[in-house]
Amino acid sequence: RIMRPDDANIAGNVHGGTILKMIEEAGAIISTRHCNSQTGEPCVAALARVERTDFLSPMCIGEVANVSAEITYTSRHSVEVQVNVMSENILTGAKKVTNKATLWYVPLSLKNVNKVLEVPPIQYARKEQEDEGKKRYEEQKLDRLETKQRNGDMIFPVINPEPHTVGYSQSSLIHLVGPSDCTLLGFVHGGVTMKLMDEVAGIVAARHCKTNIVTASVDAINFHEKIKKGSVITISGRMTFTSNKSMEIEVFVDADPFVDEPRERYRAVSAFFTYVSLSKEGKPLPVPQLLTETEDEKRRFEEGKGRYLQTKAKRQAQMQQVARQ
Amino acid sequence: RIMRPDDANIAGNVHGGTILKMIEEAGAIISTRHCNSQTGEPCVAALARVERTDFLSPMCIGEVANVSAEITYTSRHSVEVQVNVMSENILTGAKKVTNKATLWYVPLSLKNVNKVLEVPPIQYARKEQEDEGKKRYEEQKLDRLETKQRNGDMIFPVINPEPHTVGYSQSSLIHLVGPSDCTLLGFVHGGVTMKLMDEVAGIVAARHCKTNIVTASVDAINFHEKIKKGSVITISGRMTFTSNKSMEIEVFVDADPFVDEPRERYRAVSAFFTYVSLSKEGKPLPVPQLLTETEDEKRRFEEGKGRYLQTKAKRQAQMQQVARQ
Amino acid sequence: RIMRPDDANIAGNVHGGTILKMIEEAGAIISTRHCNSQTGEPCVAALARVERTDFLSPMCIGEVANVSAEITYTSRHSVEVQVNVMSENILTGAKKVTNKATLWYVPLSLKNVNKVLEVPPIQYARKEQEDEGKKRYEEQKLDRLETKQRNGDMIFPVINPEPHTVGYSQSSLIHLVGPSDCTLLGFVHGGVTMKLMDEVAGIVAARHCKTNIVTASVDAINFHEKIKKGSVITISGRMTFTSNKSMEIEVFVDADPFVDEPRERYRAVSAFFTYVSLSKEGKPLPVPQLLTETEDEKRRFEEGKGRYLQTKAKRQAQMQQVARQ
Repeated sequence: RIMRPDDANIAGNVHGGTILKMIEEAGAIISTRHCNSQTGEPCVAALARVERTDFLSPMCIGEVANVSAEITYTSRHSVEVQVNVMSENILTGAKKVTNKATLWYVPLSLKNVNKVLEVPPIQYARKEQEDEGKKRYEEQKLDRLETKQRNGDMIFPVINPEPHTVGYSQSSLIHLVGPSDCTLLGFVHGGVTMKLMDEVAGIVAARHCKTNIVTASVDAINFHEKIKKGSVITISGRMTFTSNKSMEIEVFVDADPFVDEPRERYRAVSAFFTYVSLSKEGKPLPVPQLLTETEDEKRRFEEGKGRYLQTKAKRQAQMQQVARQ
Repeated sequence: RIMRPDDANIAGNVHGGTILKMIEEAGAIISTRHCNSQTGEPCVAALARVERTDFLSPMCIGEVANVSAEITYTSRHSVEVQVNVMSENILTGAKKVTNKATLWYVPLSLKNVNKVLEVPPIQYARKEQEDEGKKRYEEQKLDRLETKQRNGDMIFPVINPEPHTVGYSQSSLIHLVGPSDCTLLGFVHGGVTMKLMDEVAGIVAARHCKTNIVTASVDAINFHEKIKKGSVITISGRMTFTSNKSMEIEVFVDADPFVDEPRERYRAVSAFFTYVSLSKEGKPLPVPQLLTETEDEKRRFEEGKGRYLQTKAKRQAQMQQVARQ
Repeated sequence: RIMRPDDANIAGNVHGGTILKMIEEAGAIISTRHCNSQTGEPCVAALARVERTDFLSPMCIGEVANVSAEITYTSRHSVEVQVNVMSENILTGAKKVTNKATLWYVPLSLKNVNKVLEVPPIQYARKEQEDEGKKRYEEQKLDRLETKQRNGDMIFPVINPEPHTVGYSQSSLIHLVGPSDCTLLGFVHGGVTMKLMDEVAGIVAARHCKTNIVTASVDAINFHEKIKKGSVITISGRMTFTSNKSMEIEVFVDADPFVDEPRERYRAVSAFFTYVSLSKEGKPLPVPQLLTETEDEKRRFEEGKGRYLQTKAKRQAQMQQVARQ
């Protein structure tokens, strides 16, 4: 579809959140179609996890987004989908890869939303494809378990008038879940949640560096708990780390199912977003260093640095591998 | 994309206007891409006309709309695009043709919006395809001229408390044209206009028969004048004719460019929509007869009857042709 | 959240209606949460009234709106919520108070929508807070009764080609109530209604003075009747009074529950909006005087003048009080 002014920031760059939402919609369609391809209980595919994704080049207003999706692995109860997004300038004909994402879906029965159904297996062209898929499946399963345990953390409102501190840029947003946000089962689309997360992360980043910012990457996101129609969700973001030219923001999504059921507020999703600051010519700008004050802030900064160095090392290894070929 | 509650009426049937908007977006993308495929002045394709289209089967919430577009003819200054819409139930895998539409676009220069550029010619597989296209081109050109002359008519507000009169169901809607409604040139997308026209026509139809109604077909629509960002548009609809099971509604779009320029209100578009009334089981219901009072109303009723009988005759001829093959 | 192009007019000022909608959403969330805080029947808080609110400074595209809400009084069956909106320019860090609003909500049972539930009482820091709240409660109750009686008036369509007459700028808009407009109970959100009212009032104001206009204030709005999903609502506005630099517009909301039930059209809401006209530099411009023709128009002009002078006197008294302190 054509990118509109509402999909973009004031500099004309399309929000990462808009792209994440399109990716998720494509993934949901292909995996729901696959899981219903054999006769059996009708089901809807629910997003369980998005792997880390990099935004390779910014998309602009007026460009057309081409989204393609393919199922690359199936386990007994889950589907791995690879989604590619290309931006096309229909005036010049130029096409660029915007990003590639890997998503995991789980089929939930339409009749009983707590029942996970079995996934029809796909055929692999080569045996290695199945083996590699299985490896990816095991890895993400482990990672899901880990984040689930980490999830006790909370973002408390702090107001700090001192620029470049954590409290200064920290932000949160509440959203009442309406019918358009939901699947046939009455639960929030993963893509809607990701779009809101990107919006909060973007506000934190802009408050910190007061320039035009764009999403550079999103770490793996795990969707631990469903969010029901009518819930109020609170999306909070705080900066955890800055390198010379990037900022890492941690985002939490907490749901409050206050009307229907007497359940406590719970953590539904959490993730790390990385932003860069861009000049008017689209060149990366230096980012002011984050001022950490408390012990927790210092610890999170070190952890963020660890993730940053790890990603950097991985990318260098990949580039060497490409160069060697 | 997946049809959401917002795309549909309370009975779950997707609004014809939502489908028309998707069709136009697909047409605009393919024709803008084509017109920029040769080096030259960059341009944006603007909708000039939509041929009569029938809604063959209703689409429902949760279904996926598959839209495909193909360029079928080019004249010196215009492009004919054929768009097909299929609805797919991703739970059952069932696919149905929802409708087929033919649209005409004209390339306008990005630098000078009043300049119509030349269209790169397409290659035809067979010579007959070019000849048939040329015939369609000449026909639509004639029809465009005719409606332009007819366009002096106005809908004056009438309130008539008597059910089933023209004044009783007559409705109008004003809309302030925002940035998301517009192309890169700052003019309203034809699809946005058609969606609003369908909204007004639907309200007229529902007021008349007080049941669940759906769009059955739209007569050829000519876009005589562009509508600029910031304009206020008034969309008015009145019922012109009822048969046993259908209603014809005439819709006018008038633009008021009140902020920027001292220009008068002008007629931008006009069209006829046909609606049917459906029972809860999706069966067509009888429609109360329209009560005409003034001479003009009686004349329009007769003209509507003429169009109705003509369409009916054409459809029977087509069916006999199909039967004979 | 960040203000987008669609939230604003072409001059970049955010529509008052967008702000009213955010205010109402915050109020609905906090009061629904409060009313469900004690075990008992689950309920949804419905907007009963908004007190007069002034728009102190315009908000622009790209700014972040910070909305905070607090419960300030509870009667047996209603909740008073105070909502503050601040606009924050995240590039410069500048913050400004945009407006403060007081809203009244009533908890309706989720099981039986016609049953008003009891509100858990709040604790007051000081006895005077409770007394002042009670006074406000009694005052608004009286005013609600009064407007209910006044509500027989209608706006009939008039077309007057003469600029600056009442008939010239008079406008109306119809809207089909969709799922996204509604609460869990299936009734229109008060905020959605207010946004549409502001849209009509803004079109009336722009038609009258043909310049860039912004909402300056909204008089107290009473929500007398609920509006059900699937209804068609007609929002009509007419200018009632102009001072040198402001325009007062009266807006009516009438609902037509045409599909479900054989009920007559009824008046759901009415209110007065005040607009000012701004130059490109954001300075107030003189407003052309309203030309009144009929006796009714002259009477309404005098009534509007009364409201205008009363508000002016109140504001001067407040300023003197502030100066004296």
